[in-house]
Amino acid sequence: MRERLDEAAGYALLEKYGIGVPAHRLARDRAEAVAAARAIGYPVVVKVVSPEIVHKSDVGGVVTGVADRIGVMAAYEQVRTAAAAVPDARFEGVIVEEHLPPGREFLIGGTTDSAFGKVLTVGTGGTLVELLRDVSFRVLPIDEAGVRAMVRELRSYPLVKGYRGSLPLDEEALVRAVLAAARLFEHEAVVEFDINPLVLYADGAAAVDARVIAGTPEVTQMPEKVQFSFPDPRTIAVVGASADPTKVGYAVMRNLLGFDGRLCPVNPHREQVLGLPAYPSVGAVPGEVDLAVVAVRASLVPGVVRDCGEKGVPLAVVISAGFGETGDVGQRLEDETSAAARKYGMRLLGPNCLGLMLPHLGINATFDPISPQKGHLGFLSQSGAVITTVVDWSVMTGTGFSAVVSVGNQADLSFTDLLPAVAADPATRAMILYVEEVKEGRRFLEAARQVADTVPVIAVKSGASAKGRAAASSHTGSLAGSFEVYSAAFRQAGILQAGSIEEAFQIGELLASEGYPQGERAYVVSGAGGFAVLASDYAERHGVALQTIPDDILRDLDAVLPPIWNRSNPMDIVGDGGAGRYARVFDVMIEHQDAWDIAFVVTVPSAVLNPIEIAHEIVRFSGKTGKMVVPCLLGGETMRGAVRVLKNHCIPNFPEIEDAFRAVGTVLRSGRRGRGALPACDTGAGD
Amino acid sequence: MRERLDEAAGYALLEKYGIGVPAHRLARDRAEAVAAARAIGYPVVVKVVSPEIVHKSDVGGVVTGVADRIGVMAAYEQVRTAAAAVPDARFEGVIVEEHLPPGREFLIGGTTDSAFGKVLTVGTGGTLVELLRDVSFRVLPIDEAGVRAMVRELRSYPLVKGYRGSLPLDEEALVRAVLAAARLFEHEAVVEFDINPLVLYADGAAAVDARVIAGTPEVTQMPEKVQFSFPDPRTIAVVGASADPTKVGYAVMRNLLGFDGRLCPVNPHREQVLGLPAYPSVGAVPGEVDLAVVAVRASLVPGVVRDCGEKGVPLAVVISAGFGETGDVGQRLEDETSAAARKYGMRLLGPNCLGLMLPHLGINATFDPISPQKGHLGFLSQSGAVITTVVDWSVMTGTGFSAVVSVGNQADLSFTDLLPAVAADPATRAMILYVEEVKEGRRFLEAARQVADTVPVIAVKSGASAKGRAAASSHTGSLAGSFEVYSAAFRQAGILQAGSIEEAFQIGELLASEGYPQGERAYVVSGAGGFAVLASDYAERHGVALQTIPDDILRDLDAVLPPIWNRSNPMDIVGDGGAGRYARVFDVMIEHQDAWDIAFVVTVPSAVLNPIEIAHEIVRFSGKTGKMVVPCLLGGETMRGAVRVLKNHCIPNFPEIEDAFRAVGTVLRSGRRGRGALPACDTGAGD
Repeated sequence: MRERLDEAAGYALLEKYGIGVPAHRLARDRAEAVAAARAIGYPVVVKVVSPEIVHKSDVGGVVTGVADRIGVMAAYEQVRTAAAAVPDARFEGVIVEEHLPPGREFLIGGTTDSAFGKVLTVGTGGTLVELLRDVSFRVLPIDEAGVRAMVRELRSYPLVKGYRGSLPLDEEALVRAVLAAARLFEHEAVVEFDINPLVLYADGAAAVDARVIAGTPEVTQMPEKVQFSFPDPRTIAVVGASADPTKVGYAVMRNLLGFDGRLCPVNPHREQVLGLPAYPSVGAVPGEVDLAVVAVRASLVPGVVRDCGEKGVPLAVVISAGFGETGDVGQRLEDETSAAARKYGMRLLGPNCLGLMLPHLGINATFDPISPQKGHLGFLSQSGAVITTVVDWSVMTGTGFSAVVSVGNQADLSFTDLLPAVAADPATRAMILYVEEVKEGRRFLEAARQVADTVPVIAVKSGASAKGRAAASSHTGSLAGSFEVYSAAFRQAGILQAGSIEEAFQIGELLASEGYPQGERAYVVSGAGGFAVLASDYAERHGVALQTIPDDILRDLDAVLPPIWNRSNPMDIVGDGGAGRYARVFDVMIEHQDAWDIAFVVTVPSAVLNPIEIAHEIVRFSGKTGKMVVPCLLGGETMRGAVRVLKNHCIPNFPEIEDAFRAVGTVLRSGRRGRGALPACDTGAGD
Repeated sequence: MRERLDEAAGYALLEKYGIGVPAHRLARDRAEAVAAARAIGYPVVVKVVSPEIVHKSDVGGVVTGVADRIGVMAAYEQVRTAAAAVPDARFEGVIVEEHLPPGREFLIGGTTDSAFGKVLTVGTGGTLVELLRDVSFRVLPIDEAGVRAMVRELRSYPLVKGYRGSLPLDEEALVRAVLAAARLFEHEAVVEFDINPLVLYADGAAAVDARVIAGTPEVTQMPEKVQFSFPDPRTIAVVGASADPTKVGYAVMRNLLGFDGRLCPVNPHREQVLGLPAYPSVGAVPGEVDLAVVAVRASLVPGVVRDCGEKGVPLAVVISAGFGETGDVGQRLEDETSAAARKYGMRLLGPNCLGLMLPHLGINATFDPISPQKGHLGFLSQSGAVITTVVDWSVMTGTGFSAVVSVGNQADLSFTDLLPAVAADPATRAMILYVEEVKEGRRFLEAARQVADTVPVIAVKSGASAKGRAAASSHTGSLAGSFEVYSAAFRQAGILQAGSIEEAFQIGELLASEGYPQGERAYVVSGAGGFAVLASDYAERHGVALQTIPDDILRDLDAVLPPIWNRSNPMDIVGDGGAGRYARVFDVMIEHQDAWDIAFVVTVPSAVLNPIEIAHEIVRFSGKTGKMVVPCLLGGETMRGAVRVLKNHCIPNFPEIEDAFRAVGTVLRSGRRGRGALPACDTGAGD
């Protein structure tokens, strides 16, 4: 049920929460309008009252600066004529209100998001809202500090503080109004509202227009779930195991042949599969089964899941497709499957997923022919193709994983369950999420917030469609598209949002190795002038603040660098000194490590630079400081061995210098700060 | 000489070019102000007149809406008091002018750029100019179409057309005013001006404030230069040739040993160098010398260049450093060197450069140990380190070049000379420029415009940030110009501006293979749902318009695709069909090739997809259409062979899907459109 409150009711609601509004009266006819104006005092504003007219100004339904009785009558007629021109609009009279002096216009709005619930919007208001798109969002609840941050994020915030000689405006009044609106939205049966404009003065603020949609948001009640953790299986059953290389049940079996526990194919039509004795059902497998991988056709899945439940299997990975993703019939099958699992207290991954990879346990319970390396990244993905692509790429670049999980339809285990479970693995030093849609948004945010306190979480959100925005009826609705809401929610939960999968992995590997920086004082050490210039551009583009070098550091650098070095940041240490010169600069930086937080190290192919040597120097540099060291060994073949040395110490290289600044910029924008050196990390591969 | 015109003189200048201004009068005292107001008619505006006060509003030097005689007197006093509060400001009276009604505020401005000369600015005006940064720039001269384009580029343009029910404004009046201001700027002795605001109404426009700086721009008169083309040398002399592996003169010799003409080391202290007979001077080399590479210390260079001139050498590549980049003494040496070359009509590359690589002629006249492959890209770079890095990377990725040129200090040959010379090589199918600073901007634009008509030109401009400019000054011996002006100038010349070196090469290889698209109708064919979703996000992010699939194409696709395909664009053709399914979709697209201009093809690693097969299908698809085909074979090792197949047909692969959309977005934003299929292009490497 959604119903738009009329303007007077909207004003009343705002007043209840202490938001100032102009004196106003409803008038059903011309005579009442004149009387209302006299009571309020001139000048007044005359606005149309019609349930069907949402954007009154746009149709000529608002007359401002009405100075006298004749003016009121003329305004009344104008507004009535304007309403008559709108098809199917009922004219219910006018509202006459105090004409407040002009001021700076803001917008406060609220929408209800299907994933995250109530979302608050603050922005530059007026008629140009969509053009300016100067807005900030927060998922409710929000406290005063949160409201202040929202206001300060606005591009127009300098206008509040007083800009180029203009008077400062009443920031406190703005904050109070936003906080009051947040309380209103939390406590009232309101699904959407739009205060535009809230006029802000040097002293005070007033809401001059309010559109409020009453209603109760539909909240899907989710059953409380038990905390999930991954089993350390001794026995894995593959239901639907096959010797036919074109079958998924073959690919899964082949991938699991490397598992050093007991592998039990289940197939009623075979004596054995790939040389292992096969069982007619999960129930027929002797002893305990710790993990069942299910790759049979969809219609058989509920039965198989029941069998697993009877057997006491704690976790089933259902790879089979043909469920909710195909329509209503499939959805019923999916519901039946998850009900069966729930009945036995068994957890379910999928259905319609690629499966699960736990490299440290030698488990590849997917049909992806390639198995990833062991490592420190946990990866959850809503797309199986994204996993096969990433794994293929990871083998080439030497990126390793603690877990790779395809979440599928999330019939039972969802991002909310899997994120803490993978993060709890001590091998996991960063979590990467490829998200199309989150279910139970609030629970997800709560889980993510807890994880992000100890393990960095980086997400790529896809599906940023502009379609819904165009159709939205309110200003706020047109601004708060699902992508913007996800971005705000991620930020609130401490999740870093990457613009691409590539960037997510760059950030993940960087944070896994170096941790969050303690501050934002950044330096660039470059052996090439051209890249020093580019570094400086990219730093500015991505919000990385390059420090002016303090005198004491400058003095120590002068002692180790040739006289022609540029003496500024980015440091152009001149390319003719080899790794030894970098090492001497690192020594100075190590000595002065209290003065900085982030160091980018840029090297280019050169006859005098030994790449392996510089890689070892960078490892030493990173190890001797609790700081974020970001290597950019640029080039190709020449740097390959050096990149491997870094990788063996878990330090990622950025072969494209802009990527390094983009990644660090994203980290800095999150506002998250580290607490110093992480425990050393290496892949055990030696140098 | 720079002098600010007083407001009346500024107004007079605008009126001369037909730009409307309010009725106004100068008043030296209070009585004159009252008289002026009476003559003009109330209400009026009273503004301070003081040569020292530039931003009158900011100091309280403007009173608007003055309604009567008392008001004028009060305003006069207020303005005089305000002026008195500004240190060292002389108060010369007030200007009284007609108070025009409010309207939408624009800005028209002009500045003189050190590289490109007079630059026109149009933007959203008022007091928030710096905050909004809603501006467009053009290097003069500009015609009416150019002015219209500037206006339409503004974010606030929808306000001119009438937005959400507001009245449309007089776009023609705005265009006339901007064009008039452009004429004024071209013809008058003005180095800078600022009309802010120009108030635009539903009918007409008026300049309400004008700040004009009279003066004559310092134009460095450059001598006319002869058109340059590269020699096809039979004899190359290396001056400063050395057998000492730590010397540049050794590295150059070693790189040139593969040259199949005559290589003559010049070294007065040696009988032979690397087994070749050495000569005491260039003059002593028997027969003609077509190219001299100079790697001796700076102080010897003018003498060597004179020797080369005497000998009739047409081109000297001066690798030696220690010239203008080091200060005044070096600059004098540089001037002496270029004067010597000029005297003999000899052309000079450098000094302070890495040298020159012409792979098709087997020439690597640089000290970079790695020689690039033959190919279709011409690359000019102002940084030697960028060249060594790019070349190292290119060998790994199989990117080939027609020429790689390090421009160095551009004492003689500059971007302006080198761009047409490299583009004239039939092997060159795209030009890539890494630019820190352009000299003789107008000549450069003229040259680039001509080249860009036939060969795509892609530039990376560095030195965008304040810090970058500082780094640039220490690097190239000259301050880099303003980033915005460069962007505008590049655009006007038809140069595509890339955000990074990586993007420049992606665009260059794509255009070298596929040419400019004829239109912007784009399709995505993906075998994976997740990447279809991401493709849709990236298309929106980078301004690539995905078409709705017309019914006839949909029908033909239905005939070749499984029923569960998504029937929309991006097409998710479902991953289980292998290369054959892609081929059938390509056939439909080939059949309907009049209906589209750009096709992205996305594939992921999969047991059922043969990468080599899909690569051949893409080559066929590209060959059978005159359209832009953009492959995104995602993953790593699995795709390596397939990427090589594409590369052998000069078709670049985009392993990161966002890069593909970014590159195509940059191409589309340029507005350049192709004329259909390019001649087939391959590397001759076979499959």
